[in-house]
Amino acid sequence: MGASATPHRIGYVIAENMVNNRKRGHFKGDVFLVNPNHDEILGEKCYPTVSAIPGKVEAIAVAIPAAKIPETIEEAGKAGTKAAIVISSGFAEIGNRELESRLREVGRENGVSIIGPNCLGIYDAYTGMDTLFLPETKFLSDGREVVATPRPRPGSISLLTQSGAFGASALDYMAGHWMGIRAFVSYGNRCDVTEDEFLEYFAHDDKTSVILMYLEGLAKGRDFLDKAKDTTKRKPIVAMKSGRTEAGGRAAASHTAALAGSDQIYEGVFRQAGIVRARDVEELFDFGRALALQPPGYSENVAVLTNAGGPGIMAADALEESGLAVTRFPDRIMSKITAYKSKGLLLPVLSGANPLDLTAEATASMFKLALTAILEDPDIGGAVVITSHHAPTILDDAAEIIAGTVLRNKKPVTVCDVGGTEMAIAMRAAFEKRGIPSYEVPERAARSLWALIYYGTFIKRRSSPA
Amino acid sequence: MGASATPHRIGYVIAENMVNNRKRGHFKGDVFLVNPNHDEILGEKCYPTVSAIPGKVEAIAVAIPAAKIPETIEEAGKAGTKAAIVISSGFAEIGNRELESRLREVGRENGVSIIGPNCLGIYDAYTGMDTLFLPETKFLSDGREVVATPRPRPGSISLLTQSGAFGASALDYMAGHWMGIRAFVSYGNRCDVTEDEFLEYFAHDDKTSVILMYLEGLAKGRDFLDKAKDTTKRKPIVAMKSGRTEAGGRAAASHTAALAGSDQIYEGVFRQAGIVRARDVEELFDFGRALALQPPGYSENVAVLTNAGGPGIMAADALEESGLAVTRFPDRIMSKITAYKSKGLLLPVLSGANPLDLTAEATASMFKLALTAILEDPDIGGAVVITSHHAPTILDDAAEIIAGTVLRNKKPVTVCDVGGTEMAIAMRAAFEKRGIPSYEVPERAARSLWALIYYGTFIKRRSSPA
Repeated sequence: MGASATPHRIGYVIAENMVNNRKRGHFKGDVFLVNPNHDEILGEKCYPTVSAIPGKVEAIAVAIPAAKIPETIEEAGKAGTKAAIVISSGFAEIGNRELESRLREVGRENGVSIIGPNCLGIYDAYTGMDTLFLPETKFLSDGREVVATPRPRPGSISLLTQSGAFGASALDYMAGHWMGIRAFVSYGNRCDVTEDEFLEYFAHDDKTSVILMYLEGLAKGRDFLDKAKDTTKRKPIVAMKSGRTEAGGRAAASHTAALAGSDQIYEGVFRQAGIVRARDVEELFDFGRALALQPPGYSENVAVLTNAGGPGIMAADALEESGLAVTRFPDRIMSKITAYKSKGLLLPVLSGANPLDLTAEATASMFKLALTAILEDPDIGGAVVITSHHAPTILDDAAEIIAGTVLRNKKPVTVCDVGGTEMAIAMRAAFEKRGIPSYEVPERAARSLWALIYYGTFIKRRSSPA
Repeated sequence: MGASATPHRIGYVIAENMVNNRKRGHFKGDVFLVNPNHDEILGEKCYPTVSAIPGKVEAIAVAIPAAKIPETIEEAGKAGTKAAIVISSGFAEIGNRELESRLREVGRENGVSIIGPNCLGIYDAYTGMDTLFLPETKFLSDGREVVATPRPRPGSISLLTQSGAFGASALDYMAGHWMGIRAFVSYGNRCDVTEDEFLEYFAHDDKTSVILMYLEGLAKGRDFLDKAKDTTKRKPIVAMKSGRTEAGGRAAASHTAALAGSDQIYEGVFRQAGIVRARDVEELFDFGRALALQPPGYSENVAVLTNAGGPGIMAADALEESGLAVTRFPDRIMSKITAYKSKGLLLPVLSGANPLDLTAEATASMFKLALTAILEDPDIGGAVVITSHHAPTILDDAAEIIAGTVLRNKKPVTVCDVGGTEMAIAMRAAFEKRGIPSYEVPERAARSLWALIYYGTFIKRRSSPA
């Protein structure tokens, strides 16, 4: 609805996404363009109204002026359409609360569920449904065409966002960091379908392994809590709530008409539902990546295994500050380490405490021996492994050997290799490829292990109440 | 001392660094290799002892077994050498405290200042002095040669690190993030020259604009505090202290024989000296980059200017949580914004509060108008600017226009453009090239503005006590 013939316009970009995705075979359904002023756009027939389209239309993406939208929804509903994604802005976010109420009412009266308004809508990496009005590439001032708003590769992370601008940024971040997406929903003012309903959908969606949420406020706190509790029985949710401060709350109010509410209330909701709270954008994605790749952990006792002293200490500090415990290893582990040392399989100089510093002379097989001893122990819930590639004895095969050890032991492990150049990037990619989330600084690896264990211990406590 | 003929050995890599740097014209001095068992290494004459070298040797890099080092230092001192960098380990960090005491004593008795032992030593990007025993490249299992421990480009950041492993990682991080380095010192067990003396040197070094420190513990707390107070009168110091927790402290003790001490004590020292404290590795470099590029800020009232609602709220939250104030703009700013709106120079929909959301239709010239009005105001200490390139109206020339506005106003500004692909990377690079630190997530831009204002308000308070 509102297909445009003018490149870069919202109605053009959405029409182009859908027509192209159908041509590529990515989108398997039919696509109809609606615009009363054109016979044809993008080589496709244009219909004057939704009711002129032959057969029943399952869903409509709406990019026409706000004032005309309620009557369009009514018409579509009467013609049998069940769902609308209203992209257009001009509703409660600029004070037009009455228009937004009317939109909701005509939707409900006519059996049309509405996502939006004032949003980017949906990107489904598996069906090719794409209402994002931001073109993938744009042209710079010197004429070069560059990737500006990429769509990430298909994966298992679903992302719900109240802010469209954050949504576009998030897709770009995920693509650039090679994270896979299942589905993306930018829902803006959410006049009809609310967060709890999205959660219910993704809770039962087999392709989603973890749900990330960016919230400015909640429409229905109680319903959200109930649905979130159900959802976390099946899969983890990571949420970032903004508008935590006075200034942030003021901005949120004028942005998506959200009442930010007291942060304590949100904190309580997240705790009761076992939602992993991210403090910032980086954590939202760090935690999402960890939970998509690694199993949850069931004990707060964790280990640090390193070949680099300083970064090992940083990881230990960050783990303890997150609430996990990095305590001296139990005798079971210590006696194994002592035995390996006496056989010459581990270096005699290492202290054997936790963090366990294998020193800069450690080889991949020493990592394997020590990590097996650690992860086999029933007390240990997971580990941060630091593989500084600056040590001469660490080559890229270390990632393969360490990843194999992690996968055999079925406990969560996050990895850190600090650096920004060739070998550092190759090492982290080698771990990621094998399902081990790897981070550029120790603290991010540590916090991500916390997320895995926060979720695991929550599930464990809930399923076996004291 | 201890030049080796065997590739990859510590004594080989250091000899190779120095000989190559001299051949390239990077190192202007003379280089002599010492090894009693070889006549020639790397095509250079080998001397049996330091005293056999003709003329006076200014400094020696020592990579021979620990037990023999004190006598070597004595011999060098008697031959007129004033400085030694002792790379070798095998001292207090593995319990050999007596050997370390003897090393310090012979150094003092013979007039030789000692950096180390158990360290990487020095990299000076301007003189080509390079005692780092980690080769720049290494060969992977498939035979490919990759950059593993790069040396960053010359710049104005000096880095002091107690941990060598962190030091190598830090060089890699800085190179990968295109940060310039003045000098790098990894000082390990610091048996002789201590942190306060390094600070004194860099305080008076014209090429250093900001000093980054990674600490596990301090040798002489009182001297450090005095020298740090002097130093922050001239230039900022950013410090990251690890071993903050019980587990971290335990690890630090066995790593560089550091007594981590109570974190409150360090917090007090940092506060008294006006040292900007980094909570983690990412902050250490984020703050360093901001302080190297931008002027300090002198008011805690700051602004957020954005074309993306959600990220603007995130920045406001992070600024307020850091202790800065994002309050409604004073009338002076508001009346300018109202005037621009009535002239059609800014969009009528924007609310004009702080954060100021220019909306996704903002152009670079709207950013310029609004940012000028904000930064010109005497109450405002600095700003975070968010330029989401996903907005169709933002092209790469926005960086040039916004950077020009920032430079004219001489107040600190940090920038955020979220994303990981082509355009996001190009946008951030365009800002950095013009001296505006730019970050991938809003919270990092916000915290870095905090660092600039923490330092500026500290200087201001100290120079005009109440």
